[in-house]
Amino acid sequence: MQVYNFEGALTREQEDEFYMKEALKLAEQAFKEDEIPIGAVIVAQNRIIGKGYNLTERLNDVTAHAEMQAFTAAANFLGGKYLKDCTLYVTVEPCVMCAGASYWTQLSRIVYGTIDEKRGYSTVAANILHPKTIIIGGVLEGECARLMKSFFVSKR
Amino acid sequence: MQVYNFEGALTREQEDEFYMKEALKLAEQAFKEDEIPIGAVIVAQNRIIGKGYNLTERLNDVTAHAEMQAFTAAANFLGGKYLKDCTLYVTVEPCVMCAGASYWTQLSRIVYGTIDEKRGYSTVAANILHPKTIIIGGVLEGECARLMKSFFVSKR
Repeated sequence: MQVYNFEGALTREQEDEFYMKEALKLAEQAFKEDEIPIGAVIVAQNRIIGKGYNLTERLNDVTAHAEMQAFTAAANFLGGKYLKDCTLYVTVEPCVMCAGASYWTQLSRIVYGTIDEKRGYSTVAANILHPKTIIIGGVLEGECARLMKSFFVSKR
Repeated sequence: MQVYNFEGALTREQEDEFYMKEALKLAEQAFKEDEIPIGAVIVAQNRIIGKGYNLTERLNDVTAHAEMQAFTAAANFLGGKYLKDCTLYVTVEPCVMCAGASYWTQLSRIVYGTIDEKRGYSTVAANILHPKTIIIGGVLEGECARLMKSFFVSKR
């Protein structure tokens, strides 16, 4: 999927919101399937090359986080395991597992929506990411957080 | 696969060596396939319920570590995503990604062979594992380390 430029290029902020909305659509799909609502897309050269949403319940597999599936899909698309010039958009701050996986991919950027106070990687250790990976938080934070809250309220 | 008791039960140490040898066989298989030679098995009630060896090159996927495949296989076997009463045997200390995954599985024990000075989870942060997970290092350390060294020497 391309970001269409109507009148000149989108700003980086507009681009980030555009792709975060795509990640949010996947998170909403997870919600519908009764999964913790987290979605992720991987973008390279203004194109989505990998997608994922949380499927830990359906697959009975703790490794089936949105990001992990997006990494695998993007690497399949590229035919190589490194995602050096790619950005991960994910609705919630990655956990330690996903941040550890992103280290191996050598992603250039991670853009996330809302923090995860309990198991976000940054609450555990700040040095988990690859030193070359830029991290940006808080993009469409409200929408991303609301979806998570609605899910957990519905589970009470 | 069962540990057969010929004259009374095996000690915990003998059991750990027995299963580490099984993990080493998988690591040797990885070596034959030109993959970084790391192998893993998951054991529950004296039975191997999941196996894996590193396949990051063949699958073009950084998430295809031995442990991740063993977690997925064991959860499939059990029909549930938690591995609470299971032990992971792995020839090399888990990386951050795999240690982060083990947190989600709530594994009861991790037994590893040789440390990974560069990207072992403990070099990054000690608090990555689940607080209930017991960690034991150095089982068949020499064999596990020799296999890794031979591999990297062969790559020079």
